[in-house]
Amino acid sequence: MAAREADQVVLLAGGVGGAKLAAGLQAVVGDRLTVVVNTADDLERHGLLVSPDHDTVMYTLAGIANREWGWGLQGETFAAAEMLERYGEETWFRLGDRDLATHIARTARLRRGDRPTDVARELQRALGVPARILPMADAPVRTEVLTDDGWLGFQDYFVRRHQEPEVRDLRFTGLDIAEASPEVVAAFEAANAIVIGPSNPFVSIRPILSVPGIEAALQTARTRGVAVVAVSGIVAGKALKGPADRMLASLGHDVSALGVARQYTGIADVFVLDQTDAELAQAVEALGLRAVVAPTVMTDDESRAALARVVLGASGGASAASG
Amino acid sequence: MAAREADQVVLLAGGVGGAKLAAGLQAVVGDRLTVVVNTADDLERHGLLVSPDHDTVMYTLAGIANREWGWGLQGETFAAAEMLERYGEETWFRLGDRDLATHIARTARLRRGDRPTDVARELQRALGVPARILPMADAPVRTEVLTDDGWLGFQDYFVRRHQEPEVRDLRFTGLDIAEASPEVVAAFEAANAIVIGPSNPFVSIRPILSVPGIEAALQTARTRGVAVVAVSGIVAGKALKGPADRMLASLGHDVSALGVARQYTGIADVFVLDQTDAELAQAVEALGLRAVVAPTVMTDDESRAALARVVLGASGGASAASG
Repeated sequence: MAAREADQVVLLAGGVGGAKLAAGLQAVVGDRLTVVVNTADDLERHGLLVSPDHDTVMYTLAGIANREWGWGLQGETFAAAEMLERYGEETWFRLGDRDLATHIARTARLRRGDRPTDVARELQRALGVPARILPMADAPVRTEVLTDDGWLGFQDYFVRRHQEPEVRDLRFTGLDIAEASPEVVAAFEAANAIVIGPSNPFVSIRPILSVPGIEAALQTARTRGVAVVAVSGIVAGKALKGPADRMLASLGHDVSALGVARQYTGIADVFVLDQTDAELAQAVEALGLRAVVAPTVMTDDESRAALARVVLGASGGASAASG
Repeated sequence: MAAREADQVVLLAGGVGGAKLAAGLQAVVGDRLTVVVNTADDLERHGLLVSPDHDTVMYTLAGIANREWGWGLQGETFAAAEMLERYGEETWFRLGDRDLATHIARTARLRRGDRPTDVARELQRALGVPARILPMADAPVRTEVLTDDGWLGFQDYFVRRHQEPEVRDLRFTGLDIAEASPEVVAAFEAANAIVIGPSNPFVSIRPILSVPGIEAALQTARTRGVAVVAVSGIVAGKALKGPADRMLASLGHDVSALGVARQYTGIADVFVLDQTDAELAQAVEALGLRAVVAPTVMTDDESRAALARVVLGASGGASAASG
């Protein structure tokens, strides 16, 4: 595949896993990468809008993510959080001082009436991120999970209750108002490769695809011959990060890459699964997906870029697959 | 004067000078102190309400003020401010990480509809402040200063332009809506001593007295026989802190304790001036104020408490004057 300047890659992503693949793709295709990021995990804390998946991707692509912790910022401190605690503010969602600046800057701009997509782009540019990270929608969409304690807001389940309750069902509020932004639609129109990151299929990818207009844009791209490549976030029956494995189980699916692949039939064309799961390739192909077996665990810059090249190669679309 | 349990002291205060005398008074009368604090310096930064005089008094009375700097908090850090700068936020009013937590907690509570006075009291209680610090009003009042560049918001003049422009005139916006809160009125009703701190007479004390209901409450207390004791913030012709000396000059007044005393005729009964200004005592008395000469420069806890005792003794009202 020859390099073509116009090649554009769209990645659908949640937090950490999606962010790592985003970093790999950015290393390969640079500013030709557009990340459409889940915002259904967003929450308000202390009157500030926190957008965890967007910020994880942004910090990772800006090279300032804290790799040791797997979340937050390098050199992060918690002076404000300690003081907020003294004031009796709920601090189960503990925000670092630098991270807080992101939420303050975002919230101030949103309050003066700026569009979420524009605000996100301003923050990214200020941090020197080459790629574009687009919130999946400008209107708020929120994930709620049904547990034995009833319906919970996503972060209440995820952070406050440490993902302990079993998830019986999921729903997304706000879809009656939300729609794909013009930028998201344009990104799909320009895309030569569409990638679904190794993110949680239920609470990271499904909310994105549920925004009115997004799955349609993806399907239109497919009719143009653009391949959609999904990457498994389940390796050897375990989620690399987060509760995807337990959600697969509690929602009645196989706890395996195959269980993930089943979520993407009719959406993806290619499914990348880890080399340790090679024996599942045939079953994946039986679903009508082309299976690609590769190392998918991203431990450093090189393995991030290597997986990006595999994905782009599998899409058959983007230039950098040859790079 | 014998100690009486019911003795209540009301202090009108701006920032640093008022906060020091507040600390001295709190050391002497404890929770019988009510500080009515100027809020006309308040400003919005990054969508957060910053209340500099309230917070200076609160941090000082909580024992967590940064004495070395003369502003802000002990052990303060600026990680968020650096990040806000990266995001292109205006940072001429630079907020520390801990201080930011105060503005975040305050703004979150105000946005959910709580009264400013209640919010202020919650924050003070959380920090273990024995005294009560009451915002002069719940409605926003803002000081503006007329300079050769036109009318400026107070902090624009004070922080952003480093008090460089000459102040030709002053005005307070919001007085058509603002009124003394029930708590402020009750504090004056209960007061056995009323003290005007060594704060800027034009931009700290005058805004407080301009709030409809406050000067009336003070005058009612005087008719009950409560003495109002004002302390000069000008010593040997210089302001101990801030631009009061230059304001006295540019507004056409004597740059001296006498110039300050003239601002309080008809309001105060006693005027405390520094021992270095003893020669002005006669001229002060000629204004109809009783002059008390004492050391007024507060460099440590002892000199704060000593001035508090002088002031309370001069008021002839509060118990602790005998302490």
